[in-house]
Formats: sequence, structure tokens, C-alpha cells
Amino acid sequence: MKNDTNNQWVLARHPVGMVTVDDFKQVESQITEPKDGEITVKVTHVAFEPAMRGWINEGDSYVQGVQIDEVMRAQSVGEVIESKNDAYKAGDKVSGFFGWQEFATVDPAASMFPLQVLPEGVTADMALSVLGLTGLTAWGGLLEIGQPKEGDVVVVSGAAGATGNIAGQIAKIKGCTVVGIAGGPDKCQWLVDELGFDAAIDYKAENVSKRLHELCPDGMNIFFDNVGGEILEAALNNLATGAKVVICGGIVGYNEEELPSGPRNYMNLVLTSSNMEGFLLGQFGPKLGQAGMELGQWVAEGKLKYTVDVQEGFENIPQTFLRLFEGKNKGKQLSKIG
Amino acid sequence: MKNDTNNQWVLARHPVGMVTVDDFKQVESQITEPKDGEITVKVTHVAFEPAMRGWINEGDSYVQGVQIDEVMRAQSVGEVIESKNDAYKAGDKVSGFFGWQEFATVDPAASMFPLQVLPEGVTADMALSVLGLTGLTAWGGLLEIGQPKEGDVVVVSGAAGATGNIAGQIAKIKGCTVVGIAGGPDKCQWLVDELGFDAAIDYKAENVSKRLHELCPDGMNIFFDNVGGEILEAALNNLATGAKVVICGGIVGYNEEELPSGPRNYMNLVLTSSNMEGFLLGQFGPKLGQAGMELGQWVAEGKLKYTVDVQEGFENIPQTFLRLFEGKNKGKQLSKIG
Repeated sequence: MKNDTNNQWVLARHPVGMVTVDDFKQVESQITEPKDGEITVKVTHVAFEPAMRGWINEGDSYVQGVQIDEVMRAQSVGEVIESKNDAYKAGDKVSGFFGWQEFATVDPAASMFPLQVLPEGVTADMALSVLGLTGLTAWGGLLEIGQPKEGDVVVVSGAAGATGNIAGQIAKIKGCTVVGIAGGPDKCQWLVDELGFDAAIDYKAENVSKRLHELCPDGMNIFFDNVGGEILEAALNNLATGAKVVICGGIVGYNEEELPSGPRNYMNLVLTSSNMEGFLLGQFGPKLGQAGMELGQWVAEGKLKYTVDVQEGFENIPQTFLRLFEGKNKGKQLSKIG
Repeated sequence: MKNDTNNQWVLARHPVGMVTVDDFKQVESQITEPKDGEITVKVTHVAFEPAMRGWINEGDSYVQGVQIDEVMRAQSVGEVIESKNDAYKAGDKVSGFFGWQEFATVDPAASMFPLQVLPEGVTADMALSVLGLTGLTAWGGLLEIGQPKEGDVVVVSGAAGATGNIAGQIAKIKGCTVVGIAGGPDKCQWLVDELGFDAAIDYKAENVSKRLHELCPDGMNIFFDNVGGEILEAALNNLATGAKVVICGGIVGYNEEELPSGPRNYMNLVLTSSNMEGFLLGQFGPKLGQAGMELGQWVAEGKLKYTVDVQEGFENIPQTFLRLFEGKNKGKQLSKIG
């Protein structure tokens, strides 16, 4: 294995404005031999999330930024091919931050998120979607921040995206009425027919504020936002008294050179005594263990469906990342490589 | 008294953009004789608040809008001159919504806020500032929404305004470090020297975001906002983890024809796991009784100072209202009439 080629995608430059394929560059290096305590993983699946756009800006944000010529950071799954760490053995399927490369040699103890061996029955698709950061984010944002009660009206934007579709399904499990906002009739139909949403709004074809008013005449109790921009404003026009706006993401702003206008009608928070809250996964601490078990149980019981959008090929990784910002993915965007 | 003249300021038109004196018109009517259950009050003091700008827009908001040719609504204090209600007698000093007029004949039972007889020792200035809507708003917004802990860093915008100066003083009573943002060296010096704020930022002369960063290097725990706009953005750049942004008002937007940009950096709520919440006084319900007692006690103990900015003359009422939007008032803006 030593001296074998390791193809990698590294950051070529910090994008300003819309990220492009040319912001990354493919390089060839060699597989690093693991030192004591380290393992070498052959990466099989790479996951993409909108937040990665923030990691490649110049400077740091809530996490350290990715540097020029550094392998692009990403959550991924692979198989241990060599281990100098007693907790891992060759053949183990593991999830961790292995990045956009074919082989990763890592120290599990130094990992930014715990490197986990996938239990029997947990596939890479599951580990990188409903049981991974995505599912945990939906769980924490909806249940810990939104705190839905049975009968609440919950609206989810980016509802066909990885986090949104799970947040909406969890709200259904909790007995809420759930409206999804997504782009295009295909996604909208999928939300209602396949995932059990009560209704869906196609923001590309419909007036979102007007449709929300029709679908939620008494206002929404919870808005779970992945999008920002005009969709957030439309939601703020339709809040019930004492509503909770959970800010999970704001993808419309991620590729803008200048921050776009914030929600111009944020004063509606005052008029409805409402609350807008952001969160990071880390703040839920040990509760994430409970989250993982609950999510796994719901999946096992068939109450929670996970959907992955798998593109093939190492060479297509940057294009696959861009699908997130083109609104192309339905469910969790993954690349299968090698 | 019957047939005596009653001068009134009525709404002449719904202002679009900046409110002007010409949006009101002075009319002469006659004092209405009280019917059974009603009282007639000779108004002595009129109070002004930025929220009144919203009441005169076309249409309704969180309260019913003021109609054209209707007497302008305002909290005020006066003396009962005739009573057909056993709970009130001539000579009583009362606070209520008597509006911009010399005499008001009202049914206390039909009042939007309870009409209150001022207890011995409570002056009109006190009743319309620290013990009135203003004080209750500061109390509820800071303590019920903000929930400060001893040692918290609290920043107040519009700090020399009626609500802001009281919110800041309550934060000091609760053991917080308090920074006020106000316009001009005079107001800033007053906040620090007279009211005990730890520091003040003059937004007209200083870079607010930079000064906040210097004064609150670990970020603020609570931001109590009366202003909105760039000052809200500056605050959102300087949040501690788990901060609370209390939206009490947003005066920079009240006179704009089109809603100005909302806080472009609202995603900082995510990066710091923070929370932005609006409120209306009514939601605190019976707790407002407790609030009134606490505020009264702090005033009696000399811990809480109240400051009124009193302009004279019935004919000057509209100009006096405009002082709020010109940033001229220090403390609670009142008119003394008659």
C-alpha cells in the first residue's frame, strides 16, 4: 500500500461569490503510512452540506477555515485498510471527516468529530444522512430548539433537502401539521406522497407568502429555515403568536459576495411575540447520543425515511458539491467513489 | 362645563414615510357630558412613544389603527373633573389613553389599558415614564425575555430613550455590566455619570461594531434593541455564545416608506447559538402587577432614576412627537398642557 497513489481534491482558492469547480484542484499524492494510534481508511462515500461553503471562505468561522492546498474537508465513510489503533481493525466501516480524497490516514483521537465504526446494519447512506450530522441537525433543531407540541403547524423550507425532509418527517412523528417549501413539482409531490407532508409549496411557481396564508390561516407555530432570503420573509409574514423560527441554514446567502438584505420584516417577531434562534450541533452535547438512538429506532420502525442522492465518481466531486447550490439534490447529496 | 371648548389634535392623513406636523390637524369640539359609568378628565400630561408611529399607518397592526379625523391616541394623565362612575371622584389623578386633547370623556371599563388612579406620591411624570408602559416594557423585555444573570454583559441601544435608559438601569440593579448606545456626547455622558452605565458609545461619532468589540471582547450576553438597522447589525457582530437579542423596537424603520434591509448578518444567530425575540407587553399578563411594585420600590430606594423630557403647550404636541424620531429626547418625552 505504501507509495500507492492517493488522489485528492484540494482547495485551489477561496471562492468569492458563487463557488465553482475551478475553486478546487485535483492532485496526486501518496498514501501516508499510519503511525501509532492512526488508521488508514479507503474512502467510499463523501457527503456534502451547504455549510461547507462557509468553510472555504478566507478566514475562520464557527470552525477553522480550509486552507489553500489543503484537502477539502467533508464527512465521509470508508473502510479501514490498515490500523495501528486497537479500537479499529482492517475491514471496519467508519464514518469521519476524511475529506475529498481516496485514502485518509488519520488519528481518531484528533478528529473534529468522533470517528465512528458503523454498527451492523448501518449503511454508508444511512450513516451520512439520517444517522449522521444531517439527521442530528434536524433532530436538534426541530426538537430542542423548536420544541413542537402535538397539533402545531410546522413549516420547513428547503424541505426536499437533506435536513429539511428529515425535520419535516420528525414533526409528523410528533403529531404536527407539516408544510414543506421546495423548488419544483417533483420535489413537492415527493414530500407529500412519499414522506407524508400535509402540503408542499413550490417556491418557483407559487407566491410563498400567499400560499402560507392559505395553508396556515392561523399562522405557523414553528418555522424551520434552511433557506433565508425571501422565503424567510414570507414565513415571518405568517407567524402565529409565540412562534419559533429555527434558523438551521440560509443557503440563499452562502454564495453572495455581499450579504444580502436580512429579513426586512423581522419586527414581526415583536408583533407576534415570536422567537428566532440559531444553533450549532455541538451545543446539544450528550443529548446527541439519545438523538442517534431515536433516529435509528424511527428508521427501523419505518416511520422515518432517508433519501440519498448519490452521484458517482471521484472526478465528479466538485460538480456534485455544486448541486446543493443549484437546488438539484433531493435528500442527502453523496458521492460514491472508488 | 357642558358646551365648553375641547381642543383636539386629530389624524389628518396616514403618513407615508417620515411623519410630519401636517399629518395632524387641530380641531375644536365641545366637552362631552359623561354618561353613566363614564368620567371626564382634564388632560394635563401627554406621553409619546415611537410605537405610536405604527398606529397612524393605514390599516391595523398589533393594535387597531387610528382613523382619519380620530383624536390621536396617546397615554396621558389628567384630573377627573366629573364622574358618573363610583370608582372615580372629581380631583382624582388618573392615567389612561386620553389622547391628544384637552378633555376626555371615557368609559374606564372600555379602555384598552386599565385606567388607573395615581396613588399618593406618584406624579404624572412617574406614571408616564418609569411606572407606565415605558417602565413595564423595560422590565418585561429585560427580565422576562432577556433573563440576565449577574455578571452578564448587557448592551442597550436607544439607551438615552425612555425605555432604554430604564432597561440599562435595571440591568445594573441585577449586577450586569451595561453598555449604552446613544447619539451624541451629552447623552453618553449622562448615561455613565448620572445613570451608572459602565460605558456608552456615541453612534454618531464612533464605529459601533468596533467599539462594542473593544468594550465587550467576549461578546455581549444580552442586546436590548430599540433601534434596528446598522446598530442591530453591529450588535449581531458581537454576540457571546448563547446570547439573547431582545427586540423591543426598531425606530430606524418606523418612518421608512419601504422596509429597510433587515439584519444582513442574522446568520450570526446560528454561529453563536443565539436567540432573537420580540414581545408585546400584554403577554406578561398578571406579572405586570409585580413589575409595577418592583419598579416603584427601586425608585423609592433611589436605585432607579426616571427622567422626563417635558415640552410645554397643547399647540406643540405634534412637534413634540417628532422629537422622538429626531433623536432629541433624553428620557421619556412628555407634553405638559393646560
